[in-house]
Amino acid sequence: MAQERIYLDHAATTPMRPEARLAMIEGFDLWANPSSPHAEGRKARAMLEEARERIKASFDWEGELIFTSGASEALEIGLGRANAERQIVSSVEHDAVFRAAHDATILPIGKDWIVDRNLLSDTLASGSKAVVAVQHMNSETGAMQPITEIATQVREAGGILISDCSQSAGKHRLPDADIIVVSAHKLGGPVGIGALLVRDLGMLKPCGGQERGYRAGTENLPAALGFAVAVEARGISTETVGEGMSCQSIAGQADWLMTPGYAFVDIQYDINRLGGAFQLSPSHWSDFSILSITMPGVSASAQLIHFDAAGFAVSAGSACSSGTLKTSRTLLAFGISESDARNTIRMSAGWNTSYNDIIAFSQAWQKIASTASGTS
Amino acid sequence: MAQERIYLDHAATTPMRPEARLAMIEGFDLWANPSSPHAEGRKARAMLEEARERIKASFDWEGELIFTSGASEALEIGLGRANAERQIVSSVEHDAVFRAAHDATILPIGKDWIVDRNLLSDTLASGSKAVVAVQHMNSETGAMQPITEIATQVREAGGILISDCSQSAGKHRLPDADIIVVSAHKLGGPVGIGALLVRDLGMLKPCGGQERGYRAGTENLPAALGFAVAVEARGISTETVGEGMSCQSIAGQADWLMTPGYAFVDIQYDINRLGGAFQLSPSHWSDFSILSITMPGVSASAQLIHFDAAGFAVSAGSACSSGTLKTSRTLLAFGISESDARNTIRMSAGWNTSYNDIIAFSQAWQKIASTASGTS
Repeated sequence: MAQERIYLDHAATTPMRPEARLAMIEGFDLWANPSSPHAEGRKARAMLEEARERIKASFDWEGELIFTSGASEALEIGLGRANAERQIVSSVEHDAVFRAAHDATILPIGKDWIVDRNLLSDTLASGSKAVVAVQHMNSETGAMQPITEIATQVREAGGILISDCSQSAGKHRLPDADIIVVSAHKLGGPVGIGALLVRDLGMLKPCGGQERGYRAGTENLPAALGFAVAVEARGISTETVGEGMSCQSIAGQADWLMTPGYAFVDIQYDINRLGGAFQLSPSHWSDFSILSITMPGVSASAQLIHFDAAGFAVSAGSACSSGTLKTSRTLLAFGISESDARNTIRMSAGWNTSYNDIIAFSQAWQKIASTASGTS
Repeated sequence: MAQERIYLDHAATTPMRPEARLAMIEGFDLWANPSSPHAEGRKARAMLEEARERIKASFDWEGELIFTSGASEALEIGLGRANAERQIVSSVEHDAVFRAAHDATILPIGKDWIVDRNLLSDTLASGSKAVVAVQHMNSETGAMQPITEIATQVREAGGILISDCSQSAGKHRLPDADIIVVSAHKLGGPVGIGALLVRDLGMLKPCGGQERGYRAGTENLPAALGFAVAVEARGISTETVGEGMSCQSIAGQADWLMTPGYAFVDIQYDINRLGGAFQLSPSHWSDFSILSITMPGVSASAQLIHFDAAGFAVSAGSACSSGTLKTSRTLLAFGISESDARNTIRMSAGWNTSYNDIIAFSQAWQKIASTASGTS
């Protein structure tokens, strides 16, 4: 193992930002139960509500915010308790969406890597009130969906659009969905907390318990404080940036988001020269902080071993399903061939990724491609 | 407000033990996703599994352990996904149990404050396979249930016994139930993590995701490390202590548990002298770290204001329902009269409660009883 490791698996989880870590440690001193009526409880309650308002303000969100234990639980609440009679979900959603939507109609992705909006119209028109789940940014390819347009379409049909923004929150301005799911540990906050942003609580059935009856369990105040600071510390705040952006338009973003964008341009030539392929959105709607890269002739699992030995943490598919060793169903849903999908790994950059990290990754990629071909 | 506050609401939540806080902060450096395949992920996975084994060993639990976001979620999994056809729950369970068991048969408490075991036999015999929920220690009165005996009864009828041990874990040896629910923040660990101890995973339906398919969501490693240290730091480890214990038998326990027990003897006379009443288990099966105390003529909400102003954090009912201002349904279920229940507060001691804290509480109680009567 190399002495200095380079972590390029930020889509799985990203280190806590130092300011979030500090806020959480300070929060340990505010340990009272925010639902307790005494002075200690009221102080904890006030701090919790302040964290809620800070996150809402930082996301420029005027609706409600329900704290959850993370994105998985938020998706379970949003999909499982939506006031709708059926579920429609895109074919490239995270496993957590499929778990929360067993009998959903699956909406395929077109050749442009964007959900098939004609089919969505037909599906919406052909049945009862639907809750539709379409993610903002894909966790394996970085492909982005035009959520604001899809939201209009879903609303006109009387439905509810829920958008999993776990990968985009903190990088891009939140889109205009009815319900948005955010995970703190994907944007430099602590693990164990997430949020469900809800335009109108009438869209959900309550369950009783805390969070105004929409999520049960003692409120996690230290994590909420760390979450708030991480959201505030993120590269972009409320300025408008495009939802989908090509490499050129990335310059309008915060410094750290420029790193993978610029470095990508620099490494693209070398990787392509060796027969490698970046699996990129044909419609140019993608974010270059997450890249799927195919190395012909070398299986993803063999690549992971080589990269790990060379000191790089990268992955194949989402961490949540990485134990399975199956070919990524997400890559297949994007139309990538079975043989390419088998040889594809994910490189994902984050808030502390440097330009040099990505250049070093490119050099390691070239070395592995030159020597490992045929070893898979 | 008094300058030095005395916190006597440990049943709502207790401060993190310093060693747990330190373990959690150290855990922030192990931030990788335990499901990731690279070296960082494998290290996180190893630490998570070590925390799991340490908690199991410390609880002397030979079955499985599923980490959850807390007791509420653990109860939802245990009751909602048990391989059983119906639910039976005691009338004094926490709200979280009732939320997870909407159509359950309610099992009343006898005059001895123990669940009616004859009725339980009849109910078990009269229908299909049942999952039965009976808590170990009540969060408002400290009353304890003879879980090991009830477990035998439930198993003989082919059922599954789930016991909410949120209040007893860390104070008493865990009972012999099939499924046990534990909350870290009630025993000096961090908020946002709990565990479901399961004798045999075949008792539960899987849901997919992490934790061997029984709980979805990125594993909370820092919290698991804090949880493990808190469990290890608790007063008692694996030595056998009685499940129900009178004040006399408390001497066999750890030092901190002796504090409320001994102090209770000292304050009992003074409080009774002023017409106050400790609402205690007639069967002497209770733990004196949690006491319900009735002050005739002064409503619980008025008492809370007086105590808060005098520098004491106490509560009425569980924090989770304290916003409701209703008379505690739990006290009524124990057979306490409506008028007494209205005038009853809860005092609960914890790992950092001193003998002097409880004596000071007694003096404050006497002062408030002498001056506040009629002000409610």
